[in-house]
Amino acid sequence: MKIQVSEVDLMKKYSEMTKAELEAEFSAVKKEYNEWKSRGLTLDMSRGKPGPDQMDVSNILFSMIKGDEDYRNVSGIDCRNYGGLAGLIELRGLFAEIMGVDSTQVMVGGNSSLNMMFDVIAQGMSHGFGGCKPWLLQGGTKMLCPVPGYDRHFAIAEYFGMELIPVPMNEEGPDVEVVAELIKDEKVKGMFCVPKYSNPGGIVYSDEVVRNIAALTPAAKDFRIIWDNAYAIHGFEDTEDHLLNIYEECKKLGHEDMVLIFTSTSKISFPGAGVAALAASPANLADLERRMSFQTIGPDKLNQLRHARAFKTMDDLKAHMKRHAAILKPKFDTVLEILDKKVAGLGIAEWNHPRGGYFINLQVMNGCAKRVVALCKEAGMVLTAAGAPFPYGIDPDDSNIRVAPSYPLVPELKSATELLAVAIKYAALEKLLVK
Amino acid sequence: MKIQVSEVDLMKKYSEMTKAELEAEFSAVKKEYNEWKSRGLTLDMSRGKPGPDQMDVSNILFSMIKGDEDYRNVSGIDCRNYGGLAGLIELRGLFAEIMGVDSTQVMVGGNSSLNMMFDVIAQGMSHGFGGCKPWLLQGGTKMLCPVPGYDRHFAIAEYFGMELIPVPMNEEGPDVEVVAELIKDEKVKGMFCVPKYSNPGGIVYSDEVVRNIAALTPAAKDFRIIWDNAYAIHGFEDTEDHLLNIYEECKKLGHEDMVLIFTSTSKISFPGAGVAALAASPANLADLERRMSFQTIGPDKLNQLRHARAFKTMDDLKAHMKRHAAILKPKFDTVLEILDKKVAGLGIAEWNHPRGGYFINLQVMNGCAKRVVALCKEAGMVLTAAGAPFPYGIDPDDSNIRVAPSYPLVPELKSATELLAVAIKYAALEKLLVK
Repeated sequence: MKIQVSEVDLMKKYSEMTKAELEAEFSAVKKEYNEWKSRGLTLDMSRGKPGPDQMDVSNILFSMIKGDEDYRNVSGIDCRNYGGLAGLIELRGLFAEIMGVDSTQVMVGGNSSLNMMFDVIAQGMSHGFGGCKPWLLQGGTKMLCPVPGYDRHFAIAEYFGMELIPVPMNEEGPDVEVVAELIKDEKVKGMFCVPKYSNPGGIVYSDEVVRNIAALTPAAKDFRIIWDNAYAIHGFEDTEDHLLNIYEECKKLGHEDMVLIFTSTSKISFPGAGVAALAASPANLADLERRMSFQTIGPDKLNQLRHARAFKTMDDLKAHMKRHAAILKPKFDTVLEILDKKVAGLGIAEWNHPRGGYFINLQVMNGCAKRVVALCKEAGMVLTAAGAPFPYGIDPDDSNIRVAPSYPLVPELKSATELLAVAIKYAALEKLLVK
Repeated sequence: MKIQVSEVDLMKKYSEMTKAELEAEFSAVKKEYNEWKSRGLTLDMSRGKPGPDQMDVSNILFSMIKGDEDYRNVSGIDCRNYGGLAGLIELRGLFAEIMGVDSTQVMVGGNSSLNMMFDVIAQGMSHGFGGCKPWLLQGGTKMLCPVPGYDRHFAIAEYFGMELIPVPMNEEGPDVEVVAELIKDEKVKGMFCVPKYSNPGGIVYSDEVVRNIAALTPAAKDFRIIWDNAYAIHGFEDTEDHLLNIYEECKKLGHEDMVLIFTSTSKISFPGAGVAALAASPANLADLERRMSFQTIGPDKLNQLRHARAFKTMDDLKAHMKRHAAILKPKFDTVLEILDKKVAGLGIAEWNHPRGGYFINLQVMNGCAKRVVALCKEAGMVLTAAGAPFPYGIDPDDSNIRVAPSYPLVPELKSATELLAVAIKYAALEKLLVK
């Protein structure tokens, strides 16, 4: 994406404006905002939800089971009936490639990796891991939450009464020095990680960060990293981004029981009707499989079969993801170009330029995030609640906004981002003028 | 089914035979058994698993989503995307009819009602019900298990460390007087019920039993009945069997929070790829929905859509179930005719003649069930492990065997039951001759 450098250079930073200049600007911005408000828009950039255009590329799944005799997988299993707790062998192989483990370590489940993660935390609470006491009976357990992070992760731990401990994210992933200090506390039982195109920061963990995470030596034997590789193959640039294999790194150090790996096709095939998978060490798998053997007689193998047929190889999958990229990249570019053009020169906000994933992480002036979200809402645009990417929904600086450009169409995104730019300016000016 | 009365009448009861007669009989039975053994059969009557013939009647589901634009339900929802925690409105309505509640009280989920029940017990353990302390923190919780019953129910409670308390079943359902006594103990937190064509007894709870269950006043406020109406419309006789509406009965007495109702299409459409549902009181729903809102972003609505289209009305569903009945009834008849003919006159075993469901409940001589199962296994036929329908897998009389005739084809069932009859006699004679 190209920024009109000349235009940006023409902008004067708000911090360099006189009060009179600020007042004039505010008056112009207010006018602009009221114009937007009068349009009666209904826009939504709140969730990382693929748009209908993206889902259309997966409609091939509808015709993957053809006719009455077409329900067997490569090993001849009748996918209509009960059984097969670990999932179809084809998909175990494919997910093993994605997650960088052996296919025997993969369990393929239903439509939701979130559900798998919830169940794993539930299992920690009621049964514990690695022979340790159930977390609920230990009491006072804590979970590390790199911030900003995925609200639904934090919500699971909160639901189970775990204390959420924020860990700062930097350009290369979570601050592992801080983590190393925190895990000296035996009550700290785990950490959530979205290691590639993190939600919402868009960060790909560096090799060093992955290695340092693998090398952690938590006081708690039942400390488990929830490695949610949700965007494993979800880059939208021409070159692929590299993520070091966490399992291999852990294994080198005998730490393979520390990590539980998750992924899904929610943002590959259909968000609500995809297939989720987990990978784990033999010891963890034994724990997880034992629970699952009581919980269900098996996953929906027909939906697995559809996926196995649509995506036979990693190359199929990569070709498919190019189609998503072709839809997503222009959407991200639209938002970023407008922000770069309209806001970048003002010194009141910053944002990342992600190479994949579903979010742009916007930092507005401290104390302005809630106000920006409220202003947008008043003018008909829903953003993720300010603070959502933080434990308990509280952003201590009130400066972070998660922007999700995937669902709206490009023309809608244009309006939405124009409005967002106005709201960012509005909130900043309000703040500056009160001082 | 007709029994050859003359043939049965010709039989002499084993209890009336002299030792010499028993020895002669044993020698003949042994010979017969060895002949079966030499055939090298592989038969399976172990699980209530629909056969391929039954699943074929549901292959219509494969073509319920036609082409690329066909993914919306009646209310226009794009079933491919996230969301819709409670499930599609069409299916909520249909399941409401099956379960006898209002559709607003129904949540339609994924492919497994067992999973739903597991999650409900898990919720009891980690969060509790009705504002009471989590069961895990209360400690020493107990679950009532009508016996013989469904092994997977009992296994869930056992997995969570609950004590399993057997409750005798009689012809009309569980012995409610015994239940009323047991629930004076505040540690008793629930009871499993399969109220129609019970697994494995085939019993339909009488109106009186349902009323008495609804009228229970447990000491524990967080006592919950798991009302697993798995075979709600699974009769195979011409006339329908009636089950009183437990929810209505509970509601009359203000006891509606005591019951959680479950059902699924596992034995209507596809065992592994059906749709499960639960129904509950508003207070219970609030508890359950809260958990689910953390656990998942929604069920697989495309599979729900397939079901909603295949089964639009209760009449569709009933017509569909007639097709199952036409396959199942001859299978049950085959088993029952052979047992009636070959064993009924000997006074060494009893069994029920179910009008629906998936099981025949066979009572052999005390101390003989394991032996019968072992003899069958040795000759190539797998039966459900003796004792499985009892808490901890222990049948105190060692007399109960669950027979599941649904999966094999009729000719296989003939062989299987002939063999079973021989094994019943073999084990009885062994026992009688040792005395």
